[in-house]
Amino acid sequence: MSRLSLNTATCKRLNLAQCVEAATGQGLEAIGPWRDRVQEVGVDQAARLISQAGLRVSTLCRGGFLTSREPDQIAAALADNRRAIDEAATLGAPELVLVVGGLPAAFARMGLPHTDQDTTDKDLLAARQRMADHIGALVPHAREHGVRLALEPMHPLFTADRGVLTTLAQALAIAADHRPEEVGVVVDTYHVWWDPAAADSIAQAGAQGRISSYQVCDWILPLAADPLNSRGMMGDGHIDFPTITGWVAAAGYTGDIEVEIFNEDIWAQPGAATVAQMRQRYGQLIEPYL
Amino acid sequence: MSRLSLNTATCKRLNLAQCVEAATGQGLEAIGPWRDRVQEVGVDQAARLISQAGLRVSTLCRGGFLTSREPDQIAAALADNRRAIDEAATLGAPELVLVVGGLPAAFARMGLPHTDQDTTDKDLLAARQRMADHIGALVPHAREHGVRLALEPMHPLFTADRGVLTTLAQALAIAADHRPEEVGVVVDTYHVWWDPAAADSIAQAGAQGRISSYQVCDWILPLAADPLNSRGMMGDGHIDFPTITGWVAAAGYTGDIEVEIFNEDIWAQPGAATVAQMRQRYGQLIEPYL
Repeated sequence: MSRLSLNTATCKRLNLAQCVEAATGQGLEAIGPWRDRVQEVGVDQAARLISQAGLRVSTLCRGGFLTSREPDQIAAALADNRRAIDEAATLGAPELVLVVGGLPAAFARMGLPHTDQDTTDKDLLAARQRMADHIGALVPHAREHGVRLALEPMHPLFTADRGVLTTLAQALAIAADHRPEEVGVVVDTYHVWWDPAAADSIAQAGAQGRISSYQVCDWILPLAADPLNSRGMMGDGHIDFPTITGWVAAAGYTGDIEVEIFNEDIWAQPGAATVAQMRQRYGQLIEPYL
Repeated sequence: MSRLSLNTATCKRLNLAQCVEAATGQGLEAIGPWRDRVQEVGVDQAARLISQAGLRVSTLCRGGFLTSREPDQIAAALADNRRAIDEAATLGAPELVLVVGGLPAAFARMGLPHTDQDTTDKDLLAARQRMADHIGALVPHAREHGVRLALEPMHPLFTADRGVLTTLAQALAIAADHRPEEVGVVVDTYHVWWDPAAADSIAQAGAQGRISSYQVCDWILPLAADPLNSRGMMGDGHIDFPTITGWVAAAGYTGDIEVEIFNEDIWAQPGAATVAQMRQRYGQLIEPYL
């Protein structure tokens, strides 16, 4: 179980101290905090809380939202991402996960600042190009702080409103402009399981030394009323974890494996029960294939 | 408007005669019937009804569901697909659209026959291989009847339960084992708009003479309670129709363009209103880019 990490999104109702307690209570050695949980207590206190519990930080989630075309908004986004890099460095998180953002046409429904022009901007290629450019703009700050930018391709369910970065192949193409220790990619089963090129892309990512994180959760049906919260515990859905885990292992990944689940039913459980369940499923569906 | 075709799924509450009337009433020259609408009146009567109205048949929707691993079930599926090929030939439909089917683990929730073993079978690679093999088994019958098998990659939203065929690149790889006049691919904006490789794949499909159909509808948010019915009228969602249409035109596609929308609100409208609206949106977002 030494590589299993609790992403705090899996226990969304718990604060950071409670997440740390849930993780250590089940013998975990790593945690992947979200920024909101960190900021509630302040980054210095969060770093102490985690290190005093003897936990590693696998990743910090998340930066990103880099698709705006308004100079003011992109400047604000870049500043926020630089703060996220600073936080990751303080926490000792080697990887900052980036969710890159959606189309300007979806900013309004996401509650993001937007202009009248944004509301009709459905130019996916242009949004992808801006995203790639802005990632490049963050690299120097990340390098200086010893934090890798971890590009997270998202399931096409989220292309419009959350992540125009869609496949591992696309993420690797962007990463190729930067050194492997500067820009990596996240392999999240929920986001990549359907991809006919997943096996090849994972092998390439591994060969390049670019796998920043392996995150696991399941594709369950029916989708939740808010599809964002449709992720399931490993084994409850349709994903073939042994096969994908085998690809990640064969690619040479030896880092932490985060369980990151957005699911109202799981959030309603006590944290200890959730972590115990994820330990059990990890032992059954992931660990034997590493 | 000579290339615009009404897929009968867009007017789901109408029978075939009413769909024909809605199409001709708005000056359309083509229709893409679903098999249920055809079978209600019988295929010979359906063929007469359509041809006497002076309409072309752009495609017949749909065959497929070829992922079972049970010999009896796959035999039944192949027999049904051969009937669909016969129906297409009688209707004068040059293309039979195939929705290939999902994982055995999802058969139960799809109301399909299933075994106990199926319920835990999440082997996506094996399901994809069976699908490819069974498509090959249908090719001779399709060739004899002058009907092309039109492989429809589906949005990854549907990989688990409806279509393990996910990308145009994957469809072209399967089609490569067959002649272009035997196996083609469907470019449906809903299913391909998010794909970073879409431009390249459409160009390749065109260069190979394999574009069987161009179908249009929009990606709207939020998803409907049944995500299957989340498709929107062109312009109501997030898809960049001018760009994708430009790719299809540049690929040399000169065939019909079907509007296929699954949407409860649109189904509640009178058929004439729906067809008038799709004419208007087609004229605005599609036709100028052909």
